[in-house]
Amino acid sequence: MNLETLSSHRCHGGVQSFHRHASAETGTPMRFAVFTPPGAGPYPVVWFLAGLTCTEENFTVKAGAQRKAAELGLMLIAPDTSPRGEGVADDPAYDMGQGAGFYVDATQPPWAPHFRMRSYIERELPNIVGEVFPADLARQGIIGHSMGGHGALTIALRNPERFAAVSAFAPICSPMNCPWGEKALSGYLGPDRSAWREYDACALIEDGARVAELLVDQGEADPFLETQLKPELLEAACARAGIPLTLRRRPGYDHSYWFIQTFIDDHLRWHAERLKR
Amino acid sequence: MNLETLSSHRCHGGVQSFHRHASAETGTPMRFAVFTPPGAGPYPVVWFLAGLTCTEENFTVKAGAQRKAAELGLMLIAPDTSPRGEGVADDPAYDMGQGAGFYVDATQPPWAPHFRMRSYIERELPNIVGEVFPADLARQGIIGHSMGGHGALTIALRNPERFAAVSAFAPICSPMNCPWGEKALSGYLGPDRSAWREYDACALIEDGARVAELLVDQGEADPFLETQLKPELLEAACARAGIPLTLRRRPGYDHSYWFIQTFIDDHLRWHAERLKR
Repeated sequence: MNLETLSSHRCHGGVQSFHRHASAETGTPMRFAVFTPPGAGPYPVVWFLAGLTCTEENFTVKAGAQRKAAELGLMLIAPDTSPRGEGVADDPAYDMGQGAGFYVDATQPPWAPHFRMRSYIERELPNIVGEVFPADLARQGIIGHSMGGHGALTIALRNPERFAAVSAFAPICSPMNCPWGEKALSGYLGPDRSAWREYDACALIEDGARVAELLVDQGEADPFLETQLKPELLEAACARAGIPLTLRRRPGYDHSYWFIQTFIDDHLRWHAERLKR
Repeated sequence: MNLETLSSHRCHGGVQSFHRHASAETGTPMRFAVFTPPGAGPYPVVWFLAGLTCTEENFTVKAGAQRKAAELGLMLIAPDTSPRGEGVADDPAYDMGQGAGFYVDATQPPWAPHFRMRSYIERELPNIVGEVFPADLARQGIIGHSMGGHGALTIALRNPERFAAVSAFAPICSPMNCPWGEKALSGYLGPDRSAWREYDACALIEDGARVAELLVDQGEADPFLETQLKPELLEAACARAGIPLTLRRRPGYDHSYWFIQTFIDDHLRWHAERLKR
């Protein structure tokens, strides 16, 4: 385990730290951030998957989540959103390539060698976290924002036994049915849309995947609401499947971390209730 | 009044906005950030002055202050730390010039034409805020960090009638007695140290300036504690002058916004108590 600690800061009685390691899945150095709450571990873990253009820093710096996580005794893990570096394929647009991994295992050139964010988040990083940090991997929750909301929903739907709680802020609810998703999934996975279904929360639910319940907050002033996010598709899929979905439409809120910081405490409480035992 | 609103975001039931205007004092465009809490105004105002290298964004994005300010009904104003731009003098080092205005009115070349942060914060910006925003300027508090802590202390000591509360995180307590301060004050004000005294909290107190009380938090793992910040000098000056100083040394905390976000709620509560009427 070649885990490097880049920095470490006392925060709300716990520790906010930043780390780098050589990822076997992506074949690149990968960074992630960890908030370790005060008190004795092992701690239940809440993952936060970020959106397009983000790194491990956006949520960690901007969401103001540490205060409530300290109070609730939750460990927070924020991974980066893609492999990065000179030898890694990229696209000039912000919605493809570096910073836009879409939490898939790519099968198509030029992406396939490094863009393995699904396996990185589902397998490699949890193993590292379990080895190195006082994390109780029997108690995990996952939250995501936008592209990361899509990541959180699909990873939880494919791994319901791993997550006692899943929630999202302004998630891309059905990448198969929006421009961001169609571009990314066709690029990373090729033209066969049947291969896309395991990366689409609504399709996964249609195909039988289940979680106990879902919490989603969505700003009504979000500029991506109608064209990219489409919570009504998730609403319909959950209704048909009988999955209890708490979808809160928030008047006046946009797509930013100003929106996330407003409701993050609610989400952390919701996770903590479901991670207690 | 040519005030431009650069962006505006709903946050914790209030509004976080960013603004730009042509400053008469600095002769440059200046930016500042405003958090307007929910509920009916006019609101008491708490100023936050940031440290070296910072802009109006650092506190606004990193301190997580909006949640508590919304709860307490406080308006938060975060100015930039210096004039900026191509026609503005600068220094290759981070601790002089752009991003390092030190809250002085410079008298020396090449700084004098634009580096007028004292007059900007003491006179120009409050007038703009009072004209444009629902701010109750009869109820003002001021907080600062590092160089901005020096700014908050000196501005409050020179204008005790304006501020009902003043506090600081890891302030430069005596710029006349540390390398950052000696470089900045000699550069901006020239070699005559008697001209520096109105920009040194400890010298101001020694010369008779008074505030009702002071609150200071200081991390014990702050790498600048011994060489630059020197809270013991403020402690001694306050003791001699009979100014009640609450100085809390926080084991393990460093100089960062991880430290500030941990204790900002305390400071806002402290200000709110003193701004009520």
